[in-house]
Formats: sequence, C-alpha cells, structure tokens
Amino acid sequence: MSPGEFTLEATDGDARAGRLATAHGEVETPVFMPVGTRATVKAVDPRELEALGAQIILGNTYHLHFRPGADAIAELGGLHRFMGWDRPILTDSGGFQVFSLAETRRIDADGVTFRSVYDGSEARFTPELAMAVQADLGSDIAMAFDECAPAGAPHSDLESAVERTSRWAERCLAAPRPDGQLRFGIVQGGTDGDLRARSAGHLTSLPFDGYAIGGLSVGEERELMFGVTAGTAALLPAARPRYFMGIGDPEGILRVIGAGIDMFDCVLPTRLGRTGSATTWEGRLNLRNARFARDDRPLQEGCECPACTRFSRAYIRHLVTQDELLGLRLLTLHNLSFLVELCREARRAIIEHRFAGFSAAALERLGSGTAQRTPGSGAGEVQ
Amino acid sequence: MSPGEFTLEATDGDARAGRLATAHGEVETPVFMPVGTRATVKAVDPRELEALGAQIILGNTYHLHFRPGADAIAELGGLHRFMGWDRPILTDSGGFQVFSLAETRRIDADGVTFRSVYDGSEARFTPELAMAVQADLGSDIAMAFDECAPAGAPHSDLESAVERTSRWAERCLAAPRPDGQLRFGIVQGGTDGDLRARSAGHLTSLPFDGYAIGGLSVGEERELMFGVTAGTAALLPAARPRYFMGIGDPEGILRVIGAGIDMFDCVLPTRLGRTGSATTWEGRLNLRNARFARDDRPLQEGCECPACTRFSRAYIRHLVTQDELLGLRLLTLHNLSFLVELCREARRAIIEHRFAGFSAAALERLGSGTAQRTPGSGAGEVQ
Repeated sequence: MSPGEFTLEATDGDARAGRLATAHGEVETPVFMPVGTRATVKAVDPRELEALGAQIILGNTYHLHFRPGADAIAELGGLHRFMGWDRPILTDSGGFQVFSLAETRRIDADGVTFRSVYDGSEARFTPELAMAVQADLGSDIAMAFDECAPAGAPHSDLESAVERTSRWAERCLAAPRPDGQLRFGIVQGGTDGDLRARSAGHLTSLPFDGYAIGGLSVGEERELMFGVTAGTAALLPAARPRYFMGIGDPEGILRVIGAGIDMFDCVLPTRLGRTGSATTWEGRLNLRNARFARDDRPLQEGCECPACTRFSRAYIRHLVTQDELLGLRLLTLHNLSFLVELCREARRAIIEHRFAGFSAAALERLGSGTAQRTPGSGAGEVQ
Repeated sequence: MSPGEFTLEATDGDARAGRLATAHGEVETPVFMPVGTRATVKAVDPRELEALGAQIILGNTYHLHFRPGADAIAELGGLHRFMGWDRPILTDSGGFQVFSLAETRRIDADGVTFRSVYDGSEARFTPELAMAVQADLGSDIAMAFDECAPAGAPHSDLESAVERTSRWAERCLAAPRPDGQLRFGIVQGGTDGDLRARSAGHLTSLPFDGYAIGGLSVGEERELMFGVTAGTAALLPAARPRYFMGIGDPEGILRVIGAGIDMFDCVLPTRLGRTGSATTWEGRLNLRNARFARDDRPLQEGCECPACTRFSRAYIRHLVTQDELLGLRLLTLHNLSFLVELCREARRAIIEHRFAGFSAAALERLGSGTAQRTPGSGAGEVQ
C-alpha cells in the first residue's frame, strides 16, 4: 500500500476497522495516538511505546516551531530521527495552541499574530507556515491550519471560524507537500449541526487524505459531543480515515469508535500518569491514596504492561508519594497500554461483528469508575 | 560459592579483581554500585540497570525506615521483590543520614535521637534497629551502624566516633542475622592515620564479611583522601572485600581501585544526570549549553548505552532544556553505563596485569575534563 491508502477491513454498525498506509508503515484502526508534544511522549522512551503496541504518535507544530525550531529538526534528519521513533507521526498544525495558549493579538484573513508562550515575543502563524513547519518535521500526516473557536462561542464566531478554516484549508493544500506526507482537513462548527454540515461539505470537496473533527471536547456537554461526533462522521467520506481530536478516557474512546471514528489522541493518559493516577477497569485509581500502601496487586489484574507485570500498587504508591520519576513513568506506560489494548480489542470485535455487545459490556465493566467523568482535553493541549 | 565467599582472582600492584558471592548471585569486583536511595535508582527502571550491566545496587535504611517502612517492605516480600530487582542489594545502616541529614538531638552510648526529615517527629536509631530494618529489607549486604564525624571535626570527636563505632559494631554482629545476609563493618577515623589504624584494628578482629572505609569524601582535600584510603586499605584483610563509601567520578574510581578498593558507590552519576550533565572522556558536558543545539553526535562516541546508541546531544539538550523527563533518564543511564564500563575495563586490566598503564592512560584521556574536580559526595547522601 502506498501512503494515503486507506482500506476498510470491516464495518459493524457505524464502527469501522481499517488500515491506513503511511510513509512509515501501516496503522491499524481504530487507533489511540499517544501525544508527544515536544518530540517526546512525556516520561517514556520510544522503545517502550513500541513494546506496548503504540502504532502512531503525535508531535506538536506550535511547540516544535519555537523549541528547538523546525529548521534544527530538519537539519538533524527530521522528527522521526530526532526523537528515535520509526513508526508514523501525525503533527497537528499549531492552530489549537495559537488560539488556546497564547493571548491572541489579531486574527486576519491571512493568519494569526500572537505572543509565544516561551518568551512572550510576537509571532505569526499562517497556513503556509504551518505546512512549512510540518514539512520540515517530516511527519507522516500533516494537519491543516484551522481556527478552533472556544466552547460556547456565539454563532457568528463559529461561522467565521468555519469560513476561515475552509479558506485556510485550500491554502494548506496549495503549499508544497513533501513526498509521502498525508494531509488531513479539520471540520469545525462547534455543536451547531448546520455549521458542521457546511464545514464538512466544503472540506470534503477538497482532496484531503483524511478528515478530523476539531472543536469538540473543549468543554461542551458530553452527550452533545458524542451526538455531534456521530452526525459529523456521517458527513465524511467512508473511504477516508476520520480523526476525533482530543479524547482519551476509555468510555469516550468506545463511544467515538461506535460513532464511526478511526483515530483519536489525548494527553489524558500521560497526564494522569504524571499526576499519580491509573486507568483501570475498576475506575481511575489515585495512587497517592493510603489504601494502596500494602496492596500487593498490580494496577490492573491481567494487564501485561511493564508496570503490572513487575510492580505492585504498593510500590508504585511509594514511588509516587516520594516523587520518584519511575512512578510517573510506570503509570504513564500502564495508562497508554490500557488504551492501546482497548483499541486492539475493539478492532477485533468490529472485525468479528460483535462491537455493540463488546462496547456495552466494556462500558458496564467500566461502571462506576468512569462515572467520575472528565471532559476530554483538547487534542493539542500542552501536556 | 556460598554467600560471603570472596575470591581474589588477580592482584596487580594494590589493585584487585575479585568475586563476591551473595544470596542473589555473584558480584565481580571492582564494582560501582548505583544508589537506589528510596527503593529506586532515580529516573531509571531496574531492567535498564540490568541491561547496562549494573551488578549490585544500594538501598537506604534511613529513608526506607521512614517511607514506606521496613515492615511494609517485609510484608510485601522484601526489598528485592518490592522494587523488582533480583540482583544483589547492599543497604547502608542509616548512620550517615542520621548524622548528616537530621539535626542530631542527642548521641548517647546506646544510639542517636534525632528528628526525621520527613515530618520532623522525634526518632531514634540504635545498632539493633539498624540491623532489624536491614533484616526486614532482606538486603544481601548489611552495613554496621556507625558514627560518621564531619570533615574537619576535632581529634576528640573523631576519636569518640571511632570508639562508638567499634562498640556499635559488636552490637550489630550480636543482632539476629537473616540467612545469607553479609555484614560489613565501617572503619572511621577521619584523615588521622592513628585513628584509622585503631578503628581497623578493632573491626578486623570481629567476624565481618567485609570492610568499608567511611568518613571520607566528606569535604577533605582529595589527595589526602586517596592517601588515607590506600593506608587504610592496607590495614584490611586481603581475603575480605573492601568498600569505599562515596565515590563516583571516573578519576576517583580509578584512584581508589589503584589503592586496593573493590566496591564503591555514589549518587554523583545519577545526580549529574538529573541536573543535565553527562560524564564523558572529554570531561563533563552540561547539556543545557547552547553549543549542543545542533550537535548530532552521541554523548560519547563508541558508548553503547541506551542514550548514545539512539539519540544525539542535540535531542538530549532539547529534552533537558524543556524539562522533559526522558532527558534526565537518558543522561542517568549514560552516566551509570560509563562507570560500569570503566570498572569492567579496569577489572580486565587487573586480570591481565596491566592496570597501572591502563589507569595512567585513562587518567590522561580524562585530561582536562576532570580537572573540574568535584568532591565526591557521601555514600548515603540523599539523592
């Protein structure tokens, strides 16, 4: 398969099992993509990611543009070589950070002027710059530069973001494309069905290799988010991969897979790990809790991750309470492994046409644990 | 070989190549022992330590007594199982911390009363407690509880520390000993040759399995330290292992090996790693330095550690300047690997009766880099 080819191996209801070819190999979907904001998935080594079965990771255009600079990474052989990761990389466009991180100075038709979070100096992003940076990074999938309106933005703001995102999408496609790099457009429109339809309609008329649903998981009510996701996914071409930006809790992953999504990412599992929490079938465990002090069980019975096969909850609690780095790493690896394994099982269920039952059972098993729902955090959010 | 057996395979001048049997396998000497203060060698995974060739690590009685408590570790199967390390462990006695970390409230003939660094509560260590904690931990080598006088202490203080250390050593040997656990006595006496002789004379009359030289590397002049080390080592029985507490720079390691020392430990390589520095043959590199921003070379050409085989100085610099945990881990692994490899080469040179030449060449190669000498840090110092 040549880069960009996407094969649908099975569908089961709206859920899909596919295979996407990239310049660094194939990705089996549905797939959770760990976030490696600053050219590293925080606290873990690329080899550990490979060993737990991560197929594709994210890099962040905004952060890498400022530190260490895309030109430096290009000179050092590109992002894959720089960070020691030979599998596919998707880079976001920087759009999310430009709008969420920095005090936005001015949006105009051409781009955005803002202050860098690194040193406060004035900086400017345009669709052309976003694509040039991603070309320098040499990612397998580049995202179009979009405008992501905040949750609860008035209709007129959502509408102008949709229009601007469409015009910028065309400019992104007109920019030079490195050999083998795929390009995904981002559908905007908040929770407004008509705007989503307008955005999807325009973007799908353009020759993107895949489509993302952006502007969700930014604070809106969760059932509404799933509804908009399903509605928007239905507007996207079946023959192209669909990427939901920013979901990383087990329940949310099962729900967006059920809505026809193929790819998703989130800082949640890595961030939870670094704050001392583990994702398990009995819910989220806060390892700082004293009840784990003499708990000799693994984080999750049956889990084959590097934490669960060798260490007890008691040991990980000790590490976390003593601020020992190994604890954060083990929790991060476990949380990522949990999601990777969940996606692997979901994929198998789709192929065997039993996804509805699998998903219902998994959601029930997650039970009260995930009743403590958290809003998904934004795809490109700083970790 | 049964635990405690020590075979001298070769001597070359005063330098020795030996093999020490423990309940968790044999240790080839000379050997650098990474420090795992709080049941973890900071920033690294036990499997990584094994892979780089670490043979034996340290655990810290003072810290583990307070967090999580030796009883908890015993209940969870002992320190090896708790921390996922199957090779030998040496535990210090807590003596160094009692005297250096806490505001010492009162030393009496029976023990020491002080305030815990964890919560300020009053605590007490005695020789019996130190041995009981080490029995609970299940270490392969337990250290006797000693009094370590600070550098520059008046003669009368050094003398009383020597006397107290002798009496406490007898009580340590009278305490219950778990099957297979070795016990090492600690020679004190500061830089005073007569006191060192008195301390060594008494301790070597007791049935210890090995002997440590304590109370050096605490701030005294470095050539004096090496001289006292050589003088003291000569007073110790050839048939028992000799452990210098607290040295971890390449030059220092070569010097104490040359003085007849078999084992040594220090937090230096791990601490340097966490502060962004790498030990190399061209000296100590501070990876925060801008000159590494586009340096595509490994930390050390030819090094086979997990950092040097996969990552550039430029990448590690990026990680370190962005406070990414992977950077600290890679530097720690490199620094430990450098010392492990140095000891392996020194051992080979001793066996082949060419240690003097090897050491001289290595010291010259280290050259100006180690001209920026740092005083060794204390063996049991908190990392």
